[in-house]
Amino acid sequence: MHAFRSHTCAELKKTNVGETVRLSGWVHRVRDHGGVLFIDLRDHYGVTQVLCDPDSPVFAEMEKVRSEWCIRIDGVVKARDESLINPKLPTGEIEVYVRDLEVLGAAGELPLMVFGDQEYPEETRLKYRFLDLRREAMQDNMKLRSDVVMSMRKRMWDQGFREYQTPIITASSPEGARDFLVPSRLHPGKFYALPQAPQQFKQLMMVAGFDKYFQIAPCFRDEDPRADRSPTDFYQLDMEMSFVTQQDVFDTIQPVLQGVFEEFGGGRKVDTDWPQISHADAALWYGTDKPDLRNPIKMQVVSEHFAGSGFAIFAKLLEQEGTEIRAIPAPTGGSRKFCDRMNKFAQQEGLPGMGYIFWRDQGEGMEAAGPLAKNIGPERTEAIRQQLGLGVGDAAFFLGGKPKAFEAVAGRARNVIGEELGLLDKDRFAFAWIVDFPIFQLDEENGGLDFDHNPFSMPQGGLDALLGDPLHVKGYQYDLACNGYELVSGAIRNHKPEIMFKAFELAGYGKDEVMKRFGGMVNAFQYGAPPHGGCAAGVDRIVMLLADEANIREVVMFPMNQRAEDLMMNAPSDPTSDQLMELGLRVIPQE
Amino acid sequence: MHAFRSHTCAELKKTNVGETVRLSGWVHRVRDHGGVLFIDLRDHYGVTQVLCDPDSPVFAEMEKVRSEWCIRIDGVVKARDESLINPKLPTGEIEVYVRDLEVLGAAGELPLMVFGDQEYPEETRLKYRFLDLRREAMQDNMKLRSDVVMSMRKRMWDQGFREYQTPIITASSPEGARDFLVPSRLHPGKFYALPQAPQQFKQLMMVAGFDKYFQIAPCFRDEDPRADRSPTDFYQLDMEMSFVTQQDVFDTIQPVLQGVFEEFGGGRKVDTDWPQISHADAALWYGTDKPDLRNPIKMQVVSEHFAGSGFAIFAKLLEQEGTEIRAIPAPTGGSRKFCDRMNKFAQQEGLPGMGYIFWRDQGEGMEAAGPLAKNIGPERTEAIRQQLGLGVGDAAFFLGGKPKAFEAVAGRARNVIGEELGLLDKDRFAFAWIVDFPIFQLDEENGGLDFDHNPFSMPQGGLDALLGDPLHVKGYQYDLACNGYELVSGAIRNHKPEIMFKAFELAGYGKDEVMKRFGGMVNAFQYGAPPHGGCAAGVDRIVMLLADEANIREVVMFPMNQRAEDLMMNAPSDPTSDQLMELGLRVIPQE
Repeated sequence: MHAFRSHTCAELKKTNVGETVRLSGWVHRVRDHGGVLFIDLRDHYGVTQVLCDPDSPVFAEMEKVRSEWCIRIDGVVKARDESLINPKLPTGEIEVYVRDLEVLGAAGELPLMVFGDQEYPEETRLKYRFLDLRREAMQDNMKLRSDVVMSMRKRMWDQGFREYQTPIITASSPEGARDFLVPSRLHPGKFYALPQAPQQFKQLMMVAGFDKYFQIAPCFRDEDPRADRSPTDFYQLDMEMSFVTQQDVFDTIQPVLQGVFEEFGGGRKVDTDWPQISHADAALWYGTDKPDLRNPIKMQVVSEHFAGSGFAIFAKLLEQEGTEIRAIPAPTGGSRKFCDRMNKFAQQEGLPGMGYIFWRDQGEGMEAAGPLAKNIGPERTEAIRQQLGLGVGDAAFFLGGKPKAFEAVAGRARNVIGEELGLLDKDRFAFAWIVDFPIFQLDEENGGLDFDHNPFSMPQGGLDALLGDPLHVKGYQYDLACNGYELVSGAIRNHKPEIMFKAFELAGYGKDEVMKRFGGMVNAFQYGAPPHGGCAAGVDRIVMLLADEANIREVVMFPMNQRAEDLMMNAPSDPTSDQLMELGLRVIPQE
Repeated sequence: MHAFRSHTCAELKKTNVGETVRLSGWVHRVRDHGGVLFIDLRDHYGVTQVLCDPDSPVFAEMEKVRSEWCIRIDGVVKARDESLINPKLPTGEIEVYVRDLEVLGAAGELPLMVFGDQEYPEETRLKYRFLDLRREAMQDNMKLRSDVVMSMRKRMWDQGFREYQTPIITASSPEGARDFLVPSRLHPGKFYALPQAPQQFKQLMMVAGFDKYFQIAPCFRDEDPRADRSPTDFYQLDMEMSFVTQQDVFDTIQPVLQGVFEEFGGGRKVDTDWPQISHADAALWYGTDKPDLRNPIKMQVVSEHFAGSGFAIFAKLLEQEGTEIRAIPAPTGGSRKFCDRMNKFAQQEGLPGMGYIFWRDQGEGMEAAGPLAKNIGPERTEAIRQQLGLGVGDAAFFLGGKPKAFEAVAGRARNVIGEELGLLDKDRFAFAWIVDFPIFQLDEENGGLDFDHNPFSMPQGGLDALLGDPLHVKGYQYDLACNGYELVSGAIRNHKPEIMFKAFELAGYGKDEVMKRFGGMVNAFQYGAPPHGGCAAGVDRIVMLLADEANIREVVMFPMNQRAEDLMMNAPSDPTSDQLMELGLRVIPQE
């Protein structure tokens, strides 16, 4: 017989009755029922009930065994009484009578119980991650993550992509976040950087003719920790293709991601229609560039109904250039209590408040209620109602000013309204491509131009477009939103040096600066660069959505804590003086 | 029609004749045949011959096109004349008559030609890697590497393994090489390390119950560059299993690797019998723990034939304790010229020389030639011949002393003899498991014990064995040798804290030191650790063998040069003073 197991803890069935078997695993829990020990023996695959009665030659030893000890038992498989069969357990038809026992690894006092659902502080969970990971939910999350990544790979291969690995110890990358640095020993005083993303390398591969690249790529950004972001490394499904348009990228990645969500969504509805929404429309309709389309609310411009109206605040506002009044329709939100609560929400968000109208049936037909309705009169009120398609029992909220100033709050109000009114189908994944991002934005501080997103995107209209008003130039740049999260970001790249230099010039970077910062890539574009584009999908985020977890640490095997520390492995730690000397570094004493 | 291509450059066949097609790719070369331009248009998939004659509306533009320009053409597919069909080219039946042309990316003066086989200095190749990679051999190597890794993954999945990612920014690891450090911004003056291997994490996963883990894992060692080693990051197929013996690990990994070699070996013979050879036997027979078994030479101890013999040097030597005489049989090496050359080789390696005997037929039957034979006389000479199984035309070389002092040279001599005599089947992959490594070795400097290999291997015989002579203790530790390279290294781990502490104590490490250095893992072993073991296979090395390349830079997409510099991306480089300030570091000015 094998030294440790003839079967896993998920394998034994009625057909094994009478066999002598060997199992290894962890003691999930021990119950003493009238002198007979009932032990749930657990391994990676399942649980088997094993019994030890005083007749067993190892009864005295078995009495010493405690939760989370790792043991090996030999025993005889017996059928359970009909009444004791557990149909929920794959091994529920049988139990194993122990004849021999070997303690493979005893356990001390447990800082964290594996059995049961007790909550523990995060620091405890991370310090004893090897115990925390034994819990069923964590085992499931890690298996899910592994299976999702496997599925992504298979789907990319099926589409003719090859995975190529790009350097991890390399040069500073242009993504704009903070780099992790790695001091060089062979060149003391000089530093490598860990890649924020393989963007330059994947573009270089396209220049080198590799046509279709992907990678489950580790990315490194030295950012301040957040619940949905690792403070150190995270993973992207990174891909790039040559000789493609934006639509080709969409047509390639949609089946991959849609397939992953269908495969691992646990029966939740996965939208197959992924609308393309311009960045400007997304801002207007949803107040964000990562809208949650499960929420049916779509905001609208209603300025005309307030211009010159009796609601002086809005009427005056509209006399200023660039202002608008927008409405957030709230179907089924038609009660004063709800409207007041939303008004208060807006005040908490730093606005003076949100005006509202709601429609009710007072027995004599529909009535529009709320102070706004009185101020603008029944005709304008009715025109608004008709534009928004609302009726009795519904409400609408109004925000005014320069859109940039209130769009974000409007977007959050839309979320809260949708949530509170239960308008969202929670068991659904709704996707939208956000397209036509502007290439530039105004730098508020100095009034100059800055890149809005990624400086390497191809401007729509090419060089000619850059000779007009730069703020009107859109890029072949896109994000994929799903349920309010940004899952994917990408672009058709600017592969023409002259267009790239012009774009950088508009953003205030001279040729020298461009060559200094991105010389590796820009230089390559002088030697026959193909048109190319691609995208990167956040693996951690996708697994979080599928596992329905709000914290990235629930879907990462060995995460850092919020202070970017690994309490289990003791990182970061003090370097030795030899290490510092070799690297030519000195630590500046902190105050 | 698609903006860039209706077909790839490998797709068009006779069945497409008459179609108007669109192709994109690089100008591989242009030939002007009597006013007609013949262009080999190349993409990732293949080459298509396109023609442009003076009737074409774009003839004038096409005349400007140069090698490595990236272009898009529209044209009409025509059948080649029977006599011009190129059966070696998938598109060799047709050619495309160009009607339209778009220059997608022009190219400047080329520092490196893609067409042809010209050799370039490594610095040129690395600086213009994006051009170097366009060459057919490099495209093939990169595709091979990608396909090998894909195959490894599929084979591991098929065996029930899941891939789990371990942290890249983490704590110092115990592999014993030099760490790359990463300064922490949130904890100035403290450092993370990049993992030399995920060893501690994979063992922690076993303690956490994951049972079967693998990862194509990036590993980082700050080592001085060598041809077969990256100076920064390299990849391993890393795996670990719970509840297994050494033989289980062999039975798991052999089909994976054998399968990969069979799939990508290009018809070369792949041995299916992988002998297990003890570390001691490997040293005796082959003079190395990574023997090349394509070489049939097996060394033998022949001390008895020299003890008390007339060859005084050896006879005297053997009076000292711990000395041996070993023979290297050299079938077909029986000429004085060859023997003298080998003797000279030994002298170049720092030995006084190698005694030899060779056997020839002087017309009057076999004669043993060489000074040694004369010294020891015909009886002993014949006994040696019979022991070694040699005959006319063969030779044998002899080395004496303490084996440790000459084993390595003997191993190299065996290689040279095998090579020079053409004894190796070059088109073959021969594997051997080297097992029973000693746990400890004598530290030559202080006379104490040191770990011979990996401190985390389980000693054969457990705790009891450690109470005897430590230098006799073997570990469940193993390497896989293939054609003279170490491809895999692994062990059954020491999962019992009391045995681990004892082993470290023998090597001079107190409990405190062990906990300080490996606390994360050792602490975990106190909470129900399962028996476990695994191994790691060098991906780069395997691809090098399959691609028949001697330099790792031929099988890595973007390698560093020998001084650990990336000339294309400019790494390492000077940090900014802001970066240093954030990290709390100062660079010490170098002399």
